[in-house]
Amino acid sequence: MCELLALNANTPTDMGFSFRGLSRRGGATGEHADGWGLASFTPGGHGLTLLREEAPAAFSVLADQLAERSPKALVSIAHIRKATRGVVALENCHPFSRCWGGQTWVFAHNGDLQGAIPLGDHHRPFGSTDSETAFCWILEQLEQAGVNPQNPGALFDQLHHCAAQLAERGTFNALISNGQWLFATATSKLHWLTRRAPFCKATLADLPLQVDFSAVTTANDVVAILSTEPLTTDEHWQPFQAGESLLFCGGQVIHRSRHGVRPVPIPARSQPAPAHEVP
Amino acid sequence: MCELLALNANTPTDMGFSFRGLSRRGGATGEHADGWGLASFTPGGHGLTLLREEAPAAFSVLADQLAERSPKALVSIAHIRKATRGVVALENCHPFSRCWGGQTWVFAHNGDLQGAIPLGDHHRPFGSTDSETAFCWILEQLEQAGVNPQNPGALFDQLHHCAAQLAERGTFNALISNGQWLFATATSKLHWLTRRAPFCKATLADLPLQVDFSAVTTANDVVAILSTEPLTTDEHWQPFQAGESLLFCGGQVIHRSRHGVRPVPIPARSQPAPAHEVP
Repeated sequence: MCELLALNANTPTDMGFSFRGLSRRGGATGEHADGWGLASFTPGGHGLTLLREEAPAAFSVLADQLAERSPKALVSIAHIRKATRGVVALENCHPFSRCWGGQTWVFAHNGDLQGAIPLGDHHRPFGSTDSETAFCWILEQLEQAGVNPQNPGALFDQLHHCAAQLAERGTFNALISNGQWLFATATSKLHWLTRRAPFCKATLADLPLQVDFSAVTTANDVVAILSTEPLTTDEHWQPFQAGESLLFCGGQVIHRSRHGVRPVPIPARSQPAPAHEVP
Repeated sequence: MCELLALNANTPTDMGFSFRGLSRRGGATGEHADGWGLASFTPGGHGLTLLREEAPAAFSVLADQLAERSPKALVSIAHIRKATRGVVALENCHPFSRCWGGQTWVFAHNGDLQGAIPLGDHHRPFGSTDSETAFCWILEQLEQAGVNPQNPGALFDQLHHCAAQLAERGTFNALISNGQWLFATATSKLHWLTRRAPFCKATLADLPLQVDFSAVTTANDVVAILSTEPLTTDEHWQPFQAGESLLFCGGQVIHRSRHGVRPVPIPARSQPAPAHEVP
């Protein structure tokens, strides 16, 4: 399985510490060695950094340098990939990015979706993952519903509705953002925490590395971190409930809902199914 | 002054060799040490790589690694920055990216534009450069003209018309692409060449590095390289004429036009002008 990581903060904040921990799982302390990616929106949402590599993050000088010089952002999303049924290729590495509603949207997924996802004409996958197809399908739904991305309530409702529908096809732990809001949803595994004053020390689970956040923050900073598995050993990580979706803004949860998670039906296949993966 | 670099090819091609040469000018063989950026569109236009850093490219491990692992792309655009009047900051590093017409557009500029550029509501700059403002203005013009980005002739005409208008404000050497087409325009300095069979050796001007392209290409490959100053010492670089615009696709020039370059008027300033730079 793949692993997800995200940051949402009320002040531009780098994700270097967390990304360093996640990277170790990309081939060293974890088996997610088939690619990695990191997307960061600088404040304003226009200064996107987006880098992906079809190589193990744990041994990538590029990933190491990006951890060292991680851009300060209000929203960052990272992913390390373990391909089980899809090919190892750059176009299959997450996060994926697309334009919709005049904004850049970024998406990363951990899970496995069964069956062919129906697509319209506006958004088509370039790679061969069920994840990118699901992302294209979500953007089609937002478009068809006429959602205003400036309206966080409407956006959350539609994204949560999409998540519930995709959850019927399998495991759908996912992150999506336009740099303003961070939407996160889980059917099986995702954790989160909020760092705020009084800030403490935190120690990575995958590397002998500790940071004293009180030395690098101000009293008003609020920073949410989301990760498939807890990244630190001395902080209180909260698990997502199965079917739960959260919308983050400024490091805080501003919308929250939960759908029922049904057992995944085994689809009847009359023709060869498209290549799937367990991202 | 800043320097520009671009690649357009008919087969996915990495820009590592040329980017290595350009990077040296970012603080070692050249004075453009205030930031760098590289954007690459993977085939299909959706797998964007976009990385910028407010540091000298010549001494950046991140730039070095990106040269080493430069993604194979149909279009890549890079920039090294020398800020003379703007601040050194990530949001002022080129290439800039924006969504328009459901596609991601990338822009880089070398020059200096006088006076306030009028903007609409859809595209606003985040940083403080005249370059990003010009990019936003161009996208507004494309939108207002109702240009179909799938129509290269109409796109070229509108972009060339925009270039002519911006050239009235000063120096406008620029690159813009959506991953399908590469538009390049110059008022003062830009060079280009096409590499095709029979491929030869090429030697960088800024680094003792030579590549034998016949060993890394096929007979059908066509690759255009654009650069502010010639990057190699043993190839035939063609200068852009003042006011000339070219549209590249598949490594070939498919549209070409030239406008008159008028002297730049000195604007009357009744209030403090916004920060400018010579990118």
